[in-house]
Formats: sequence, C-alpha cells, structure tokens
Amino acid sequence: MQHQPPLCADQAHHQDSALATTHTDAAAGQVSITALCRAAKQASRELALLSEATKNSFLVALADAILAEQATILAANAKDMAAAQQLSEAMQDRLLLTPARLAQLAEAVRVIASLPDPVGQIRDLRPRPNGIQVGKMRIPLGVIAMIYEARPNVTIDAGALCFKAGNAVILRGGREALHSSLALAAVMQQVLRQHGLPTAAVTVLPDPDRALLLALLQQRDSIDLVIPRGGEGLIEFVTAHSKIPVIQHYKGICHLYVDVDADLTQAMAILQNGKTQRPGVCNALETLLLHADIAADFLPRACAQLANVRWYGCPLSQALCPDVLPAAADQFDTEYLALAMSVKIVPDMAAAIAHIAQHSSGHTEVICTQHFQRAQQFIRQVQSAVVMVNASSRFSDGGELGLGAEIGISTSKLHAYGPMGLEALTTEKYIVLGDGQVR
Amino acid sequence: MQHQPPLCADQAHHQDSALATTHTDAAAGQVSITALCRAAKQASRELALLSEATKNSFLVALADAILAEQATILAANAKDMAAAQQLSEAMQDRLLLTPARLAQLAEAVRVIASLPDPVGQIRDLRPRPNGIQVGKMRIPLGVIAMIYEARPNVTIDAGALCFKAGNAVILRGGREALHSSLALAAVMQQVLRQHGLPTAAVTVLPDPDRALLLALLQQRDSIDLVIPRGGEGLIEFVTAHSKIPVIQHYKGICHLYVDVDADLTQAMAILQNGKTQRPGVCNALETLLLHADIAADFLPRACAQLANVRWYGCPLSQALCPDVLPAAADQFDTEYLALAMSVKIVPDMAAAIAHIAQHSSGHTEVICTQHFQRAQQFIRQVQSAVVMVNASSRFSDGGELGLGAEIGISTSKLHAYGPMGLEALTTEKYIVLGDGQVR
Repeated sequence: MQHQPPLCADQAHHQDSALATTHTDAAAGQVSITALCRAAKQASRELALLSEATKNSFLVALADAILAEQATILAANAKDMAAAQQLSEAMQDRLLLTPARLAQLAEAVRVIASLPDPVGQIRDLRPRPNGIQVGKMRIPLGVIAMIYEARPNVTIDAGALCFKAGNAVILRGGREALHSSLALAAVMQQVLRQHGLPTAAVTVLPDPDRALLLALLQQRDSIDLVIPRGGEGLIEFVTAHSKIPVIQHYKGICHLYVDVDADLTQAMAILQNGKTQRPGVCNALETLLLHADIAADFLPRACAQLANVRWYGCPLSQALCPDVLPAAADQFDTEYLALAMSVKIVPDMAAAIAHIAQHSSGHTEVICTQHFQRAQQFIRQVQSAVVMVNASSRFSDGGELGLGAEIGISTSKLHAYGPMGLEALTTEKYIVLGDGQVR
Repeated sequence: MQHQPPLCADQAHHQDSALATTHTDAAAGQVSITALCRAAKQASRELALLSEATKNSFLVALADAILAEQATILAANAKDMAAAQQLSEAMQDRLLLTPARLAQLAEAVRVIASLPDPVGQIRDLRPRPNGIQVGKMRIPLGVIAMIYEARPNVTIDAGALCFKAGNAVILRGGREALHSSLALAAVMQQVLRQHGLPTAAVTVLPDPDRALLLALLQQRDSIDLVIPRGGEGLIEFVTAHSKIPVIQHYKGICHLYVDVDADLTQAMAILQNGKTQRPGVCNALETLLLHADIAADFLPRACAQLANVRWYGCPLSQALCPDVLPAAADQFDTEYLALAMSVKIVPDMAAAIAHIAQHSSGHTEVICTQHFQRAQQFIRQVQSAVVMVNASSRFSDGGELGLGAEIGISTSKLHAYGPMGLEALTTEKYIVLGDGQVR
C-alpha cells in the first residue's frame, strides 16, 4: 500500500520514464543547456525590474491566449494521450487536458495576476545611531529550474508563478506530457513576444533526456534554485546530482493527536476529513495518536465510523478495538496514501510530541484539544512545516493557507518551509540610505 | 596582490592547513561523527524550547566564565602560539588571545544575550474565510555546522549566536587554534552543565582531520545547515563535498558609482573610507565607476587624495589621470584586498548598473547621488546583498547594519543574503488555529 503515488507530488511510480536515458550527445547537450541558461539569466535581469502592472497585464493576456489557442493545445495533448495508452488510468487522467481543464488553468493564471507582487516590498527601514537608514527589500531569486513529471498544467502554473515573482524559469517536464508542455510554452512565448518581453523568461526543455537534466543541474552560475515536483525517486535523483540548491519535499506522514481535553465530535470530523477525503495526497493523515484517557471512548467509534480504513496499532489499541491489526516495526514510518492508518495510545501530550519528533516527515501535524496551555505548547514544540490546533490537515495547502497559489512544499527548513507561494520565490537584500556617512 | 587574504573571511592562504589530511581511520571517524551529530540533533530539540530568559542567563554566565577561566584559556592558547612560529605575523596575530581580547569576547557574548530572541515570534496571523487563523512562527533551524580556520574567537561567537537562536552547533576549526578552541569549548561545556543544559548543544570536533570533515558533511539527517568561514578554497571544498545546504560567501568586489548629481565632497569621503580604512576586508571598495561628466573633476583629485592607491583603469580614465595604469582583461573581476583599485568612466547610471551586474560578486554596491529618482532606481535595480545610497561600503557588516552580531555573510540568495544574524539562524513554520474546521 505504501507504493500508491502521492497525488500532490505527481507519480512516484512514474519516475522511471521521467528519468529515462536516451542516446543523446551529452557534450553537445551541455553546450546548448549552458547557452539556454545564460539566456534565462539575462532575461531574469529584465524581469526583476518589471512593474506589477506590466506583469499582471502579461498574465491576463496569457489566460486569454490559453483559451484562444485551445484547439492547438488540445491537439498537442491528443498526441501525448495517443502515446499514453499503456499508462495507468490515473496517469492518463493526469495527462489529459480538456476545455474545462484549460478554463481552470486560465483561471489559475488570473488568480496569480490578482496576487500582490512581493518584489520591491521594503520592511524594517530603521535609522541607526549614525543616521543611516537600514531596511530589507524583497527581490526575485533570478532563475528557477522546475523539474516535474507528467502534469502539463505545471508548465503554466510554475511559469506564471515564477514570472509574477520576477524570475525566469526553465521547465523540464516528463516525456509523456512533452507535446502538451511545448504547446503551452509556445502560447507563453507568443504572449511574451506580443508584450515585448524576453522569450527566455520561460523555457521548456525540448528534450526530456536524462543527460540534459544532469547538465541542467550543473548550471550553478545561471540557476539560483531547483524545485523538483514528483516522486521520491525524482527528488532523490535531483538532490544527489544538483550543484544548485534544491527544495526538497519528501513524504507527508501527518499526525493527529487527540488530547484528553479534546472536543471528540470535532476530533472525529477532523480525523475523518484528514484520512478519508482524499487519502492519496501528502496532507492526508497517516497516524492517529490518542491520549490514554479518551482512547477507550474514541477508538472503537473511530473504527466504526471509518469502517473502510484498515488500522495498524500498538498493543493497547488492539486491546480496545478488534479491528486494529498489529503494527509492524516500520508501521509508524509508513506513508499509506490509502485507506489505512497507524494508531498509538500515549500517556500524555509529551509522549505524542516525542513520537512526532521521531516519526514525522516534517510536513503537517494536528492537535485536537480545548486545553489552552497544551494548545500553545503543541504549537510551540512541534517543529513541522505546518502545525495546527483543531483544524484538518487537509488545509495544509498553499491555496487553503492563503498563499493564492503554490509552487511546491518544502519539508526541509532552508529558505522555505511548508507550502511555497510567491514570497518563497524571492529573497531579501539590505538597503542602506545615507547622507554621506563613513565609518 | 589578489592573493592577500580577506580579513572578514579568515585567511585564504591558510586553507591548506585547514584542509590537511592526517592518517585517521575514516570509517571509525564516521561512526563517531554520526553519534556526535545525533547527540547534537537530540540536544537541538531541547534548545528549541528554552525560554529567552534561560538562554540569556546561560550566556551571561558564559561571559563570566570566560573571564574566570582566563588563565586556563591563555595557557591553551600559548600551546597554539608555540606551534605557530612558522606562520605569518598576521596569522599569529589572528591566533593570539590576550586578557583584553578575552574581555572583548566576553562582552560580545553579553551583547548576544541582550539581543531580542527571534524564536517564537509570530507574524501575519490572519483569519481565512472559513475561520481558521493562519500565521508564521519563527523556529530554530536545528543543528548548524560551522567550518572555520584559525580564529579561536569564532568558537565562542558562533557558539553563542547559534545557542541564542535555539540551535545546537558543531564547530570545526583549524588545527592551529585547536588547543584554544577546545579550552573555550570546555568553558561552554562547564556552563552548560551548571545550567542543566545538554552538553551536546556545543561540540568542538577534537580532530581537525579532513576525513572527519568529509564525514561531517554527509550527515544530512542531523545537520540542517553548514556555514563555512574562510578562504575561497575552504568554501569551494565544503560546497563541493557537502550533502547539506551550505551558505556561500565568495569574493567581495564592491563598487562605488559616483553619479553626475553626486555631492563630490561626500563621494570623496566615501571613496577614501571604503578603499583605505581597511583594504583587506571584504566590504572594502574594489571598483570606482564615474559618470563621464564629473570624471575630469573627480578622478585627478581622487588620485591625489588616495596617493598610496594603485589605479587600473579604462582608456578614458588613463587620459584624465597619468597615475592610472591600463586595466588588464580581468581587472574588473579582481578583488584586490589591498591599496589598489579599478576605475571606469561610464556614460550614465544604466551603464554603471550593467557593469555591476556583469562584474559584481553580489556583496555590496554604493551610489553617490543627490538625484532622487536615480537613487531609487539604483536601490531597486542593483541585486547585490547590500545596496547603499550615499554611505560607505564599510557599513556592510552585521554590527553596523544593526544585527547586533554576525555569523557570516551570504552572497548566494538562498535562505539568507548578506550579513547573517540571529534571524538567519532560524526558519518559519506555518501555524493554524481552528475551531474544528474541515475541508
């Protein structure tokens, strides 16, 4: 069951094709990759200076063009679909574009246009004793390389998000979606040209070859950040070979701890929503931790209410509920992504937090409690990217958290932690305003 | 002249000894490194939860203990000094501890105690339409590995800064300072024990062996960030071999652009301060860019006033001033760290900004101008870590910018950009406060 793919991260089982090698001249590839990355770097300097109005006007035109070019895009997608007959149904569904999906894609671009531009924001501008004023200004990162698998919509989503944050982007998707991605990229190129913007702002690699990917990951002088979106194999491969910083998103082993002072009706709703609404996504619950004093009341009802879930638990939970199967040694490190769940009964919140520290993947953890101090302590002490009180783990998503759009989720703490929106595609420089001061 | 070491980054020519290999059992080393890193990880979980008062009380006691243990520390330093007879005078000076320097070190720790604790700060806590409140809370990074060269004071500075930000730290200094570093670490250990804090909060590697350093750089599960401080060779070595994110600080090729509307008296003071006050540091000026309309007035006076500076310039500047030698092909990519300077005459600010974009190392750039719009444009358009108007590049320093203390300077944009203080040793997680909401 661990092998079902996480929907939030494209398809784990699809990594083979995404990383497949063909016989290409790696040296020749490297030369063109270097030129292409330098062009992106050059374009990024122009993009960094665009006004918000110019960027929004491009994005609105892009949304219109996606609809206007619908026939061309769908024809390209039909080629991908024709070659995808041997793929799984879920995979084909992910690859498929329809008029309704293109309308959604166009709408997503309009939403990105409506988000506030982080670039140029100044914070904490304060005078120093000598009279200089020191503050921080938000600026684009520069060039982002996005490595993904079979979803053609990422081409537009990532292209639009990186553009709004003032970055150039190099997109390297899976070969299954290549015709669709190139058709979508052609639309972006056309709108860039119409707006007098550098076409190197958005580049789709025309060849999803592994040697080209390896060459791309060496371009430290041009690329500022690599964001892989896909299965663990893809992320491991990119991390192992990249000379450029990589945003990492591994598993989502999300925990729900039901405290002795929880509202058990709320807790049941949050459990059901987190485990069953969409079990295949990374913000679904995988482990239930129950305070010993409410376990006898809560667990049998949970087993009855979530009747289609398989349970694997500690001896105490097995004693309370005959449906609970014995937990194996690695059970609490398992990301099911399916209707299965680990359960453990703990003596207190400290034990729950210790369990989370040991087994969490750093994604999302939830406490249900009405106890004020313990709510505060859980929020403070649990060090995952998203920590919640009395709310469903399913809110751990850029859109739900108010980012407007999401380019990925980081489960490592450097640069960004948790769902990444526009701000995570920028950095801050110091600015100093003086009046002739010297040291 | 390019080979003189930058003082802000220990000693470039010292990298050989810092990276020297001795015959140690690498496999055995790796086992103990892993155990040591895991202990640091475990300690970091406790440190993350300490109150600001507890942390400050430890730091004040540490400052006292540095003074109380002065005799032991100076005796250890005497051993290092005895073995350092063959080193350069500058090197020996950097290695030397004296009662006065220990008093400065203790004072620096007291300053760190007085800085506001970033951990636990919450920002932007706002309700979403469904009633959940979403915000961000600052948390420690976890475990920091600090790789440095011969300065024993870094052992205390970095130890105290990482501690205040709630992180465990693993310190790996150069072999020249080993006795001093171990003596300072012993003082920290003793104060940690006295305060009931985990001693794994601060670890000094007892063996500055290259195999151990390589093993340290593989500990991705335990260490969250690597900060190298030293010459370019050390930073390149750490970056090339680390499986953990590395903060990079390469050269500081800082530019001063004197605009047509500059106050030339201010500009001269800023030039003199930036070039001559301490030429060997990374925030010293290396390149002067002059607007063509003020060059004939300004450059001859600059050559006269900075009489001990060697100038290398473009043909236009040579024509204006006989002291200016012809610039070689790589002249504008040279970090002199000495009384030498490149000069170029440009037709306008756009040309100055283009020159900076091509040749800057991303450290610090200054414009002198009284023109409001161009000041704004320069601030917005130059993408270095610190961008200044009418102020000396020498202010590009954690203390001068108001960070209170500095653990390093990042010239890459990921995670931190520019001088790094306490905030750069932390990250932010999302917090969600609900009332039973589900999706």
